[in-house]
Amino acid sequence: MSEILIGIDVGGTNIKIGCFDLQLNLISKTSVTTEADMGPEPVVERMVEAIIGLVKEAGFNPEDISAAGIGTPGPADYKAGIIINSTNMPAFKNVPIKKMLSVALNCPVAFDNDANVACMGEFAVGAGREVNDMVFFTLGTGIGGGIISDGKLIQGAGGNAAELGHIIIYAGGRRCNCGQRGCAEAYASASHTAKRALEAIEAGAESSLKKVREKKGQISCKDVYEHLKRGDELAKRITEETAEALGLLCVNVLHMTEPQRIVFAGAMIKEGDLLLDRIKYYFNKNIWKLKKETVEICFATLGEDAGIIGAAAMAKEIIRE
Amino acid sequence: MSEILIGIDVGGTNIKIGCFDLQLNLISKTSVTTEADMGPEPVVERMVEAIIGLVKEAGFNPEDISAAGIGTPGPADYKAGIIINSTNMPAFKNVPIKKMLSVALNCPVAFDNDANVACMGEFAVGAGREVNDMVFFTLGTGIGGGIISDGKLIQGAGGNAAELGHIIIYAGGRRCNCGQRGCAEAYASASHTAKRALEAIEAGAESSLKKVREKKGQISCKDVYEHLKRGDELAKRITEETAEALGLLCVNVLHMTEPQRIVFAGAMIKEGDLLLDRIKYYFNKNIWKLKKETVEICFATLGEDAGIIGAAAMAKEIIRE
Repeated sequence: MSEILIGIDVGGTNIKIGCFDLQLNLISKTSVTTEADMGPEPVVERMVEAIIGLVKEAGFNPEDISAAGIGTPGPADYKAGIIINSTNMPAFKNVPIKKMLSVALNCPVAFDNDANVACMGEFAVGAGREVNDMVFFTLGTGIGGGIISDGKLIQGAGGNAAELGHIIIYAGGRRCNCGQRGCAEAYASASHTAKRALEAIEAGAESSLKKVREKKGQISCKDVYEHLKRGDELAKRITEETAEALGLLCVNVLHMTEPQRIVFAGAMIKEGDLLLDRIKYYFNKNIWKLKKETVEICFATLGEDAGIIGAAAMAKEIIRE
Repeated sequence: MSEILIGIDVGGTNIKIGCFDLQLNLISKTSVTTEADMGPEPVVERMVEAIIGLVKEAGFNPEDISAAGIGTPGPADYKAGIIINSTNMPAFKNVPIKKMLSVALNCPVAFDNDANVACMGEFAVGAGREVNDMVFFTLGTGIGGGIISDGKLIQGAGGNAAELGHIIIYAGGRRCNCGQRGCAEAYASASHTAKRALEAIEAGAESSLKKVREKKGQISCKDVYEHLKRGDELAKRITEETAEALGLLCVNVLHMTEPQRIVFAGAMIKEGDLLLDRIKYYFNKNIWKLKKETVEICFATLGEDAGIIGAAAMAKEIIRE
């Protein structure tokens, strides 16, 4: 009997697993530590054990699994189903994860990067559920992205579409971790927001963040927003620059695929309107005035479950086919 | 009998019309002057007369038309089938062109902007015919665009996707005709390439282009490339800036929809390798080195027929449905 879907969200620290019905309602979920250093076989074995335990606990049998979906951090060859060289899991090199899972669970497996999978989750049941065209950003160490056009995820010729953090908006500007100059990520990711604050302090800027640095040896993006709330001028400048880069990024994605909704996710959205209102301000300031734009810029609604839900939504797509 | 497709490419000066078989082979073509000042009804009447004449000349009857496609310059409400306010045809305001043609020809009509239509032509039988994912640019007064993802044209929530000339790559930079700052178009369209040369001369730059300006009162993009060939230093700087903006635009579209091929069209491509080699140079200089990119940057192959072929290709899509 074909009754349930499995969604798996692999992170550097934890693997989250969800068991869903065919309408994407969550039946139950669990989490195991990744223990990536153990290497791919033991990790997949633990993952499969946890899945089977979860399924049985929910009153089903492994044979009831219609399909599974899995999201992992890139880079990977998503079309071939292989984790090539994961930066967060160094022991995973050329791992045919899709095939390994498919054999172990005896069901079809959908595989994509973590940002695309979370995008699918928000599109299926979260912030994008009423629309057909959506762009999704995750603000974390980097800026990940996903694009839904006419109800379908854009995957690109090699499965590497929607690398939206690496859109160049300040040509010749800051060096990004990717090697390019002027990427949105090099300004507006959580880590680059913190990094710009640190650089400014090291260059002699006055700021209440100085004490944070002295105490902790570093500054987090959360610290920057905390000191913005306390009225620190440097924190204001840094967070305005972050919002402007994100507003410009919204302009650019609007001109590319014309989404109805642009959805931001990631830990940074905990800053709420301090972030969202300023992104909207810079979008409105920079967008053309040739016609009235109706795109809605908003935050994700699913929180940490977006990954498992999106993975299950992708699994649902492959049983349909 | 359902045997032929009609492709119509409306420009400010001429309306080109092609009669095609269902495999998109051109049977015959014609052209009439637009005479847009006469207003929509007479223009559509002339267009329909020309179509019927063309069809009969080719040995068919109007009943043999399976579907027609039409491309016009924007802005329009392509989903509703209405030319709202054409900058090149001021007498055309709120014209339900799709319905008018559909009634006159008694067949379904596909309607899109000229850049999307030319993109479809190159995708169907031109520079993009072997690929599934392609991005298309036309370099003219502005920079138009089209995106094919997984074999389908991306139209966006309101039919206004792929406004690729208005992707901001130099935030805070030159003012574009659209009102935004730093758009690719404000640097790299044919008219802005000429304009930058003119501005440099007006600011006192030395250049053999000075004489052109004295003689003609203006400078064209063609003049700039002509003087590049003659070794003019200013022409070299201006055309390098054009190529760099286009190379950066290629980086950005690669990170958005990951095309296999990026195709440039428009009068500027007559400059050949003087343009293409430099775009490739700046793409390679600016793209990340995280993985080897295999995207091919090339020129369109259909020339002036791209519009009628693309319009016919769109017509073909709607009989399929």
